[in-house]
This record gives sequence, C-alpha cells and structure tokens, in this order.
Amino acid sequence: MNALETTPEATRHTPRVLVRGTGLLGASIGLGLSARGHRVTLSDPSAVAQAIAADIGAGAPKSAQDPDPEIVVVAAPPEATAGEVASALTAFPGAIVLDVASVKDEILLELHATADDPGHALRRDDLVRYVGTHPMAGREQSGPVAARGELFTAMPWVICPAAEQGVRIPTEAAVAWAEEIARRLGATVHFMAPKDHDESVALISHLPQIAASLVASRLQEAPASALELAGNGLRDVTRIAASDPNLWVQILSSNAAPITDILHGLRDDVDRLIRTLESPRAPGGQADIAQLISEGNAGRARVPGKHGGPPQSFSRLIVIVDDRPGQIAAVLNDVAQVGVNVEDMRMDHSAGHQVGMVELSVLPGRREELAEAMTEFGWKVVQS
Amino acid sequence: MNALETTPEATRHTPRVLVRGTGLLGASIGLGLSARGHRVTLSDPSAVAQAIAADIGAGAPKSAQDPDPEIVVVAAPPEATAGEVASALTAFPGAIVLDVASVKDEILLELHATADDPGHALRRDDLVRYVGTHPMAGREQSGPVAARGELFTAMPWVICPAAEQGVRIPTEAAVAWAEEIARRLGATVHFMAPKDHDESVALISHLPQIAASLVASRLQEAPASALELAGNGLRDVTRIAASDPNLWVQILSSNAAPITDILHGLRDDVDRLIRTLESPRAPGGQADIAQLISEGNAGRARVPGKHGGPPQSFSRLIVIVDDRPGQIAAVLNDVAQVGVNVEDMRMDHSAGHQVGMVELSVLPGRREELAEAMTEFGWKVVQS
Repeated sequence: MNALETTPEATRHTPRVLVRGTGLLGASIGLGLSARGHRVTLSDPSAVAQAIAADIGAGAPKSAQDPDPEIVVVAAPPEATAGEVASALTAFPGAIVLDVASVKDEILLELHATADDPGHALRRDDLVRYVGTHPMAGREQSGPVAARGELFTAMPWVICPAAEQGVRIPTEAAVAWAEEIARRLGATVHFMAPKDHDESVALISHLPQIAASLVASRLQEAPASALELAGNGLRDVTRIAASDPNLWVQILSSNAAPITDILHGLRDDVDRLIRTLESPRAPGGQADIAQLISEGNAGRARVPGKHGGPPQSFSRLIVIVDDRPGQIAAVLNDVAQVGVNVEDMRMDHSAGHQVGMVELSVLPGRREELAEAMTEFGWKVVQS
Repeated sequence: MNALETTPEATRHTPRVLVRGTGLLGASIGLGLSARGHRVTLSDPSAVAQAIAADIGAGAPKSAQDPDPEIVVVAAPPEATAGEVASALTAFPGAIVLDVASVKDEILLELHATADDPGHALRRDDLVRYVGTHPMAGREQSGPVAARGELFTAMPWVICPAAEQGVRIPTEAAVAWAEEIARRLGATVHFMAPKDHDESVALISHLPQIAASLVASRLQEAPASALELAGNGLRDVTRIAASDPNLWVQILSSNAAPITDILHGLRDDVDRLIRTLESPRAPGGQADIAQLISEGNAGRARVPGKHGGPPQSFSRLIVIVDDRPGQIAAVLNDVAQVGVNVEDMRMDHSAGHQVGMVELSVLPGRREELAEAMTEFGWKVVQS
C-alpha cells in the first residue's frame, strides 16, 4: 500500500514510520507509535541519541534492508527541519512526510526555495506529500532519555497544511494521515494556516518565554535576602525561564517577524510605564497605571481554563496540612468521600515552616458543602 | 502596662490591639489576634467593611468607652497609611503603631515631613513608637469577606525599622512587639532596612506583576483559535495579571524609583532583542538570544524552592488519571502507602480531553521506588 493514496478512514492500516531525529519529540513519537502497533524505524545524526531511543523501545535503527517507510516524521531541530524534509521527500518518493518543528512558515519558504532550485532534486510536485505540524508538548528536559509515549496525551497538535491561492498544497490523504498520527498519539488536533500558527505561538508561547527570561535575568544580581521573600507570583512567572537556550535561539530566530511585532507593542507599554513612574503624581499618571493592570485583567480573563473551556471561576478552599507523607492523600480521600470533584489543586508553601496549604478548586456550587464536611472530618479549612 | 516599655520576652501579655482599616489584611490580623487571646477593636472609614469584619469575628467595633489600645495596626491603603499612622501616634501617646503597607520608604518620608511641620501635632519623638512592616501575604480577592486568620501562616513578614546614621529610630520594645505580633500570626519574620525592602519587592513582587500584566494585556485582541493552544506556560506567566488595579496603582506609584530602575534594564533587554530579531541571521544575533535565555536560566536557578531552601531538584513522576471524583485521592493514597512524601504537585490538563495528569515531585532518591510501586498498584505512570 502506498500511504499517499488512501485516507486513514478507509483502512485500519498501521503504516511503516521512519522517525528522523530521536530527541525528546522524535523518541516520544517512536515510543507512542510502536506501542500502537506501527513498525517504527529511527535515524539520528547522533549515534548515541539513536541508540538510546532504540533501547527505550522507540523503534529499530534504520537499516539499508528496511522497506521504504510510508510515513516519515522529521523531528529535527527547527533550523535543520526544511533540509531533512526535502531529503526525505526525495529519498522516499512514495512517503508522506511530516515535521514537528514549533515554527511553520519559515520552513515552508525554505522548502519552496529548494524546490525552485534546479540544482536540487526536490520538485514542487513533491510538496503535495509534505504536511507541517506542531505538537505543543514540550518539557523542561530534552533528549531521548526524557521521552515518553504519552507526551502528547490531551495536548494540542496543530496541523498546518500549506495553501496557494486558497487551495491546499498537500493531498487530502497526506493531511488525513497527519491528523491520524496525531490522534493515535492521543493529541487534540487543531487546523491552522502556517502564518496564523506562527502568529499564535508568538503570542501564547514565545512571548511568555521571553517575559519569563527577562524577569528571571534581572534576578541574577539580586541579594539573597530579596530572593528569600519570593512567593508563588515570582515562582509562576519565572518557571519556564529554566528552558533550553539552544532550542529557544532557533525557535525565536525562526519566528522573528511575528515576535518583533509583539515586542514593539510591549516596548511601547514599558516606555509609557517608565514615563508615568518618573513622575507618578502627575495628572493622568495613575490612570495610565490602572489601565495597564486593567488591560492585563482583560487579557488574563481570555486564557482558557481546564479542558480548553472558557476560564471557569472555580471556588477555592484551602486545607492546612502538616508536611509529612500521606497528608495530602488523607485530604483528598476525605474530599472523595464527600463526592466532590477537584477541578484543580496547588500546594502553597513558603520559607521557614514545615506546613503546607493545599488549595482545592471546585465548582462554586459545591464549596460550602465541602468546607463543612471537611471541617467535620477535623481538617483546618480556610475558604478563599 | 504600657506596651512601649516592655519587650514581649518579659511577659505573656496579650496587648489590646486596635486595627485601623478592615480590608483583607486588617480583618485577617483581627481574626488571627482575636483567636490568640488579644482584645481587638476595629475601625474603618467604611461602616460596611467595619461591620463585616466585626461579624466574622475580627474584633469589636471601636467605641469611645474603650481603654486606649496598647498596639495600633494601621492596615490602610498605601496612600492613606502615613496619615493614619501619624493620627494614631498622636491620638494614643502610649501605643506602639505598626503599619502593613507593601511599600515602606515613602511612608517614612511622609511621616518625617509631617513631624517637621509645626502645624501638625506629630513630633519627631513620637516616631520611636512607629515600626513599618510588610506581611507578604496577598490574595487575588480583597476585602474583609476574603479575610482569614491563617492568611499569614508560613508567609514572610518583613519588619523594617527606620534608622538614622545607623541607629534605629524605634525603641527596642516597639521592634520586639512588631516581631511578636508577626510571630503570633504564624509568619516568618525577616528584618530589612526600608529602602532595601522597597528595592527587594520591586524586583520579586512588582516586576513579576508588571510582566504578567504586560503579557496578558497583549492577549486582549488575540484570536480565540490562538488562545485555544494556550498551555501551562502562558497560564503560569499570566496568573497574577488578575490582580486589583486600584491596589496596584498605589503600590507601583509609591515605589516608583526602584521600579523605574529595573524597568530601564528590562527595556534595554527588550530593545536588544528587537534589534536582534530584526535581522536574526546577522553575526552575533543568535549569541544575543542565547545570552538572554541563559541569563534567565541563571536567575531562575536562584528562586528559592519549598520552605525557602535552595531551589531543590525534585524528581517528577506523572500519573494519568480520569477526570472524576476520587482519582487524585486514590493516587495519593497509594503514594502514602509507599511512604513517600509529595514535595509538590500540580495538575496538568489541556483542551479536549477528560483526563488529567498529576505531576508529583519527590526527592530524587525515592522516584524509582515510587514509580515501580505505583505501576504495581495499576496506575499509568510516566517518569519525567
């Protein structure tokens, strides 16, 4: 069977998949597809990365005797992606080729330039077998050691078919197989034009990364006494500042234009705030500050909550616990007895005390009932 | 007894406390001190706020028949604080006066100016009874309805005695009582000079607030399809953007100078990043981006972890659960049976799937054991 010709609806076929690049994403895809019955082969310029991925069960190292893959997943660093896609399209003329890089439009431009270059074997016609995709499942660790087949469970996976004058370039079957692979790995599929994708991730992924890094970098020279006062606000805002510089150099420079647009707006806001704070009692100054915070309120209110629904207002309730094994379990046990679903929870703790606060988010209608029942169970309950 | 003359070590005395201002902080202080045996009276310019605070048990409304308080806690909005402190110092010439505003130096300057004004009853000598403090226990909600006596449990409470030429202005007893009140409310006491405090909170509290608001405000006009892709990175960075504009106008404008210094540095970084991204393939461009992210790594590594210790590297392990009552409890129950302490946990979930991932942080030495035991219990376990 040639995967190109049949959409997955027509078959229960598990195509042979070659995963090119066995870092975190590639090895996780290999693990997930192997577990779901696909015959997966692996290749990576690093023999060590390839061996680790094979060892953990992501697939078999590709050998010359293997039949050609029906689907190739290119999981290379962003800068190497277009080259790898072009080489896969020419090496396997019957295969559908997907990539999983986190920026889409620049890769497409590079592929078109390559196809138009008479010195390269790639032709425009080959691009009907290419579908750009972006599984939004990162981790703070990287490499095949961190891989896991469930990495994509319940995570968004964006499929970005290229189009020319409103007509999709990839075949229907190629797009359908890209979608099928994402679904088989447990992801939630979103469709988006490549440019729209890049603008979206600039805003919801690249901007927060930059902001976290900017804030965290100011902490380098801070006195230890200041950092001792740090609370959850600082911890939350800077958590993703722990990310990998090499990866982010490639992501940010591959999506430079949409990010630059956003940063111009950000800089204007910073400039206005600096001017206001240079004479904070001047007329209109306080209104300027209030506007910034209010606009932040409005933007924050648009960030979806759990399960992608509208940001739901859960009611919160805090239970004070000792910091020893079993306490949180005991709390949640009792919550389960009451029959209330915990929509979200976080632990809250701070310097110097061996007690913790478990904050439980529940549907507003259930809070009173839960607070009363938990108090009866003997817990120290505080309502938010 | 006159509270001014005796340090708390010498007595098991529970001084009479007047709380002036019954918003979130004032009402919480009233609740906590009443529960610990203090006779607390309350006053607030808003009769409603005062009545609510009294109703929930924060203390009794102040009446003319009450004996003078031994300690006055001013819990007014930042801009009203200096005026309230001055009036308390003159109205109760035997009392120690504390405030709990989140910025300290500007209040002190205003108090000194008032004391030097011959038209005002306040004298320089009165200032030996004043101690500026800052309990770092905010909430996203405000007002006495949100108050709770445990608000300060395990939270930092900064005590900022003023000094002139290296000599503290407040008496030893005044400082000791400020510390005692904070400790009786369960807080962890830190001592800091007022200016150092203001520079510290500019960095660890005001800068993250500004960054969260700046990022969130850019989301106002974003297409819904972009926001559907939002993950925990965006949610974490923007969480505190939900804060109260009125409060933050006062905080930011009362601490304008240290914040402006930091924002100049931030703007320089943004400018450099914009220049780099305008020609991302220019020589040195990628190195500039890598430097920003690396500096963020370094700063983030300095943010203390749980219990104020150095940021400890816990090992993480993820358990996949159905989204229904009792699942998290069941997970933690089994964890407790294994006898491993959960150092931190978070729930991870995303659009479209009714499953959750419970991420457990445990000491690195316990992870393998826990993962094996949980798998045996039948859980789907994924190691981070």
